[in-house]
Amino acid sequence: MGPAEQGKRFSFLTHLECGRCGRRYGAFIPQGRCECGSPLLARYDLAGVTAQTARAEFATRAPSLWRYHELLPVQSQDMIVTLGEGMTPVIPMPRLGAEWGAGNLIMKDESLLPTGTFKARGAAVGVSRARELGIERIAMPTNGNAGAAWATYAARAGLDALIVMPLDAPEITRAECYITGARLYLVDGLISDAGAISATAVAAQGYTDTATFKEPYRLEGKKTMGLELFEQLGWRVPDVILYPTGGGVGLIGIYKALLECQEMGWLGGKMPRLVSVQASGCAPIVRAWEEGAAESRRWENAATIAFGVTVPKPLGDFLVLDAVRQTGGCAIAVDDEQTLAAQARVAALEGAFVCPEGAACFAAVEQLRKDTWISEDDEVVVFNTGAGTKYPDMVSVHAPVVPKGSALPEG
Amino acid sequence: MGPAEQGKRFSFLTHLECGRCGRRYGAFIPQGRCECGSPLLARYDLAGVTAQTARAEFATRAPSLWRYHELLPVQSQDMIVTLGEGMTPVIPMPRLGAEWGAGNLIMKDESLLPTGTFKARGAAVGVSRARELGIERIAMPTNGNAGAAWATYAARAGLDALIVMPLDAPEITRAECYITGARLYLVDGLISDAGAISATAVAAQGYTDTATFKEPYRLEGKKTMGLELFEQLGWRVPDVILYPTGGGVGLIGIYKALLECQEMGWLGGKMPRLVSVQASGCAPIVRAWEEGAAESRRWENAATIAFGVTVPKPLGDFLVLDAVRQTGGCAIAVDDEQTLAAQARVAALEGAFVCPEGAACFAAVEQLRKDTWISEDDEVVVFNTGAGTKYPDMVSVHAPVVPKGSALPEG
Repeated sequence: MGPAEQGKRFSFLTHLECGRCGRRYGAFIPQGRCECGSPLLARYDLAGVTAQTARAEFATRAPSLWRYHELLPVQSQDMIVTLGEGMTPVIPMPRLGAEWGAGNLIMKDESLLPTGTFKARGAAVGVSRARELGIERIAMPTNGNAGAAWATYAARAGLDALIVMPLDAPEITRAECYITGARLYLVDGLISDAGAISATAVAAQGYTDTATFKEPYRLEGKKTMGLELFEQLGWRVPDVILYPTGGGVGLIGIYKALLECQEMGWLGGKMPRLVSVQASGCAPIVRAWEEGAAESRRWENAATIAFGVTVPKPLGDFLVLDAVRQTGGCAIAVDDEQTLAAQARVAALEGAFVCPEGAACFAAVEQLRKDTWISEDDEVVVFNTGAGTKYPDMVSVHAPVVPKGSALPEG
Repeated sequence: MGPAEQGKRFSFLTHLECGRCGRRYGAFIPQGRCECGSPLLARYDLAGVTAQTARAEFATRAPSLWRYHELLPVQSQDMIVTLGEGMTPVIPMPRLGAEWGAGNLIMKDESLLPTGTFKARGAAVGVSRARELGIERIAMPTNGNAGAAWATYAARAGLDALIVMPLDAPEITRAECYITGARLYLVDGLISDAGAISATAVAAQGYTDTATFKEPYRLEGKKTMGLELFEQLGWRVPDVILYPTGGGVGLIGIYKALLECQEMGWLGGKMPRLVSVQASGCAPIVRAWEEGAAESRRWENAATIAFGVTVPKPLGDFLVLDAVRQTGGCAIAVDDEQTLAAQARVAALEGAFVCPEGAACFAAVEQLRKDTWISEDDEVVVFNTGAGTKYPDMVSVHAPVVPKGSALPEG
C-alpha cells in the first residue's frame, strides 16, 4: 500500500446476501450458505468505493488481483495471502481468428497464475478471508485444480487442508495437494461423491467447508477475472465472453463484476453476451437453458475429457442461467472431438497449449461462428482457464528416437 | 505503445560484440557466434536510452517484459511475438526464511510465464527477433523446457521449429513441442548429443541454429529477469541472488542487466553476490570455480533430478564464472536429496510447488546460511525457474482411496 492509500478504507464489504431469497447475513463472522440452501453473495458499499477511488487509479497499482482490494472482502493488507496472482494477459489470436472468420478473437490466459489455473484466484481470496476470520482448518471436494490451489494457499497461510478428489481428476493435482502437506483422499466417483465424503470431516472434525458456494469468498476472487478484463479493455466490455461451466463460479463472478462496475458507473449499460460452455458428456446447464428452466437437473453418467466441467448438478446453476439470460448470451455443449481439435488448432496457430476446458470454449467459438450466433465483427473473449501442461495425456506424442551421432532426415 | 511514445525510438540496439575477444558484428542481419566460437552479446546506445526514458517511466507501462523495449533487440512493436510474458511476482518467504534463519528471503517466481518456465523470456525475444530478421526455420537441442518455449513462440510467429531432446527430459515438454506442430526428435543421450543431431539440420536443411548462445537474442530475453527484479525492488539490488546454472544464460542475463543499469545510473555501484547453483551430479561450473579456472571442463556421466542443469560443458561457462567473481558471489553444488527436501519444505511452509532447479537454489540457501556465507540480515532472492507441476514424478503421492459414501477417519 503506497502512501497515497494511508487513511483510506481497504475494503468496502458490508454484508452477505442470499443469491436466491435475498436474506441478509453478517459478513464479519464465518458464514456458509443461506438457510434456504443457496449461495451467499458478498455486498459492498459501492458508493463508498467510487467516492474514494477512481477507476483510473487501479492502473497505478501493482499488477495483481489485489489492486481491486476495495471490492474484495479482505479487511486488511496484512491478512492477504498471496503468491502474486492476477493481471493475467489478454492476448489477441489473429491467426486462429482468421481461420474461423472471427476477426477479433482474444484469449485471457488464466494459465499464468500460481498452480496454473484460474482456481488460484478463488483460493487466494478465500484463504485470505478464512484466515482473517480465524478459520484454521478447511475441507473441500474438488475436480483437482481447485483442491490444488486451496491446498497451496492454505499451506502458505498455515492452515490445515483436507482435500477429496475423484480418481479420474488430473493426476498432477494430487502431487500439488500432497507436497503442501494437505490430507488428500481419492474416491472412485464424481465430485459429488467427493463432496459427501468431505462433508463428514466438516461435520465431525471441525473443518470449515470450502466447497463451491459453501462459503462466500471464492466467488469474490473469481470476480477479479471480470474486473481485470474490463480494465484491460480500457473500461469497456467485449461483445461476447465464453467461459467453461463446471460449478459455475467463474461465469457468475464475471457477471457479478459486470453488475458492480455498471452500478459504480465504471462501465456503460452494454452487456457482453455471456456464453456458458459445457461438454456434451456433462451439460446440465445447457439442457436447462434449452428447456427454458431456471435450474438444472442432475446429469447422469457424466464423462468428458474436459474434466473440470464434470459437475452433474451445480449449486449455483440458477445464477449461471440468470447471467446467461440477462446478458443475451447462450449455453452450448461441445463434444470431446471438437475440444481436442480446437486445442490442436490453438497450439498450431497461436502457440498456446490450453487446457481442455479452455479448448472447449475455443471449440464453441468455432461452432457459434458457423451458426452465425457470433458475427465476424464481434469482439470475442475466450477464457483459457488453465495450462494444458496439467493435462499432458491429452496429447498423443509421436516423436522418433534417433541414435546418437545420427543426421536428421529431410522434414 | 501509448501516444506519449510516438516518435520515440523503440530499441537502442547498436551492434553485437564477442563476449570473449570483443570483435564487433552488425546486429541487423542474422548472426550466430563469433569467429572465435564464443557468444555474441547485444550492445545498446545506453546514453540514448537514458536521454529518452527515465526509469520511473517503466512503471506506467503494461506489466510484461516488453516494457523494457529500449533495452531489447526488437526494432518495432509490430514484430513482437508475445503471449503476455514477464513481470513475474516477487514473493516474500517469511516462514521458510524463519526456519532457515534467513530473515529476508524472497522468491522471484518464473513459473508464472507461458509454458511455465523462465525459458519463455528467451523464446519470446529470440523468436521475435528471428522473425524480424526474416528467419523462417529454427532448430535447437534442449533439456525440454527451452524447446517447449521456442516451439510455442515459433508456432505463434508462424516459423517452423525443429527440436531435439534427451529421452530423459521432462516428458510434458514433449507434448508441448508436439502439439504446436514442431518437428520433435528424441535421443538416448545428453543435450550435447541432441546438439550434434540438431546441427545436422542446421547444416543441411536451412534451419537457423537457436541453441544456447548460438544466437545472440535469447540472452536479451533472460536479461529482463534482472531488469524486473531491480525495478520491483525500487531500483536497487538485493544482497544475494541465487540462480540455477545449466547453460548459464539466466545468470549471465541478470549480470548483463546489472551492468547496463549501473552504466545508465539506474543502480548504484553495489553488487548483489551472484550464486551459481548446480547439482552434485553435474557441476562443471562449481568445479571450475573451486579450481580458480576461467572455464569449465566437461562433466562426465552427468545425472541429476534437476534436469535443467544437466549441461556437461556450457558454452558460456567463462561468462558465468566472471559474473560470479566480479560480484563477490560463489558457485555451489547441492545433491538431489537436499533438493528434494528443500522442495518439500518450500511447499509445506509457503505453498509454492517449485521446480527441481528452483528447489536446488533453495537448498543452496539453506546450505550457505549454515556455512554463514549468507548472513541472517542478507536480502536473498531465489529464482524459481519453473513450475513443479512440469515434474510431477518428483513427488511420491500417498493418498488413500476411500469408498463412496464413507466417513473420513480422524486425521
